[in-house]
Amino acid sequence: MLAFTVERGKLAAKSKRLPALKPGWALVRVRLAGICNTDVEILRGYHNFHGTPGHEFVGEVVEVAGVPAAKRTQWIGKRVAGEINIGCAALGFRPVCKFCKRGLKRHCMRRKVLGIVRHDGAFAEYLTLPLENLQAVPRSISDKEAVFVEPLAAACEILEQVDLRKFREAAVLGDGKLAQLIARVLRTQLERVVMYGKNPRKLALARKAGIETKLVRGDASDWKRVKETYALLVEATGSATGLALAQAMTEARGTLVLKSTFHGAAPVETWPIVVKEISVIGSRCGPFEKAIALLRAGKVDPRPLITRTFPLADAPAAIRFAQQRGVMKVLLRI
Amino acid sequence: MLAFTVERGKLAAKSKRLPALKPGWALVRVRLAGICNTDVEILRGYHNFHGTPGHEFVGEVVEVAGVPAAKRTQWIGKRVAGEINIGCAALGFRPVCKFCKRGLKRHCMRRKVLGIVRHDGAFAEYLTLPLENLQAVPRSISDKEAVFVEPLAAACEILEQVDLRKFREAAVLGDGKLAQLIARVLRTQLERVVMYGKNPRKLALARKAGIETKLVRGDASDWKRVKETYALLVEATGSATGLALAQAMTEARGTLVLKSTFHGAAPVETWPIVVKEISVIGSRCGPFEKAIALLRAGKVDPRPLITRTFPLADAPAAIRFAQQRGVMKVLLRI
Repeated sequence: MLAFTVERGKLAAKSKRLPALKPGWALVRVRLAGICNTDVEILRGYHNFHGTPGHEFVGEVVEVAGVPAAKRTQWIGKRVAGEINIGCAALGFRPVCKFCKRGLKRHCMRRKVLGIVRHDGAFAEYLTLPLENLQAVPRSISDKEAVFVEPLAAACEILEQVDLRKFREAAVLGDGKLAQLIARVLRTQLERVVMYGKNPRKLALARKAGIETKLVRGDASDWKRVKETYALLVEATGSATGLALAQAMTEARGTLVLKSTFHGAAPVETWPIVVKEISVIGSRCGPFEKAIALLRAGKVDPRPLITRTFPLADAPAAIRFAQQRGVMKVLLRI
Repeated sequence: MLAFTVERGKLAAKSKRLPALKPGWALVRVRLAGICNTDVEILRGYHNFHGTPGHEFVGEVVEVAGVPAAKRTQWIGKRVAGEINIGCAALGFRPVCKFCKRGLKRHCMRRKVLGIVRHDGAFAEYLTLPLENLQAVPRSISDKEAVFVEPLAAACEILEQVDLRKFREAAVLGDGKLAQLIARVLRTQLERVVMYGKNPRKLALARKAGIETKLVRGDASDWKRVKETYALLVEATGSATGLALAQAMTEARGTLVLKSTFHGAAPVETWPIVVKEISVIGSRCGPFEKAIALLRAGKVDPRPLITRTFPLADAPAAIRFAQQRGVMKVLLRI
């Protein structure tokens, strides 16, 4: 099969054998894969990952190992999205770690992560995942929507962590792909969602989804001129300076959700967090069921975020294109 | 009356008239005042405060203005501790701000703060506070205990913010005055509290209170060698680098309480907060009732933390002494 791997900061095409299946695992033919900023960071050497990147996908189950025939029949041919964190049980560790024991598989201490940590991902014709990680995609959801299930689930994680009924409005810092999904998810439950971003075209996309927008030009000093404060604020700038900016815009006793996983340190004054008694909530991967439910109900439409689709063979060009200014989601069709 | 004010980074003695009383306010003769690191920061110019510092005290009510005779009689002669945040109502603002409306007077948008923000404090023979800020001190609590009510309340704030029943153990980073009180408060509810600090004598004090201790010599690189992680961790190092250190020691889905109000920025990597989905809770002032209850029940004894008591007239020498290495709480007797 054709698969791309990370080599010296670039994606290199490889011809690989189909991966072997462990019992309880599925072989999935990838239909569509999404390029995420994390993939770009992986090319830059983060996570020290040298396999096949790609963790946003929709695919079709083509083989299942070590399960009864009925279960196998049930899965073969199913269109699926896939939870990217692989926990102790699926990796064959007994006893399972304390996080798996608590049902927090996404925080498994031994976890592998599709296309990110020690497990090959979706920039390939085929990938493998444990059956327990797969979520069937209903027919009413197109491939171009389903490929957003993973990042949309990450946006939905906020709903698990914060009781939105306590808030009437929220601000989202950043206008990138994840910020756009977050703002849309928050807008399903809040009267007013305000996005702060630098790119007028990206902000225009948000406005079409019922999101209020504010243009902030330039650098940190421009952010400092923003005087509004919010009881609920989501930092999704994708920059290391996000926390420093966001805490100034969070009001006393407010909640600040951190979403940026940019690697690198930025100077942060922590005393305002203390004086204002802010709660800073780190938020990463989220519930696939909720993301699928939002897509099925038509409450979130991610398709306007797609800038361009490339064939898998053009993955290197696609990931270069994804890094250009103003480009939103780039997909690979396999 | 004798009062000290901040002048060019030092405490200067002044002979002042007794402060005038607004209706609903009390004149309090200070009996004992504590020196806090915030007072040292104020000398360095933080908060741009040029009045009389001092916000930890026990005193005696000597006059009350604008209340019925019965209420006046009830208060005169009472030994009191005092909540330091003065909200809209006591300052005469109507309507009150949104935080006062929610009962969050400590976060009042117009607040004055005793000895910190626009209101003279306890390094003087007398101070004023609204009656609503005063808490009577039971006879069984000595002055030397009562002077700790304010910082002990700040430690108790953690009990309001974090449900300790979910935890069996906690770590406290730092071995200073506030860290010591926090560890003692946590120890009243948790089986195991571990203090990480640099000073063997301060750690020995903690051990006498049933707290486990770990010596961390040197700087950030030594902290990085600490491999233990905790589900609940309190950062009270009093240093700008506290958040950076503490996040590494907080386990996935853990709670990290920030207590240090050191002014200055330190480089922080925020991605581990996101990847581990840590909750970082800023924590400042706390409930006086709870602090008094702990002292009354003898569950926390802060007296071993007192290094030395100076007469008020020697306040400049006292605050210099308070900054020496290894010195814990320094008191002023008035």
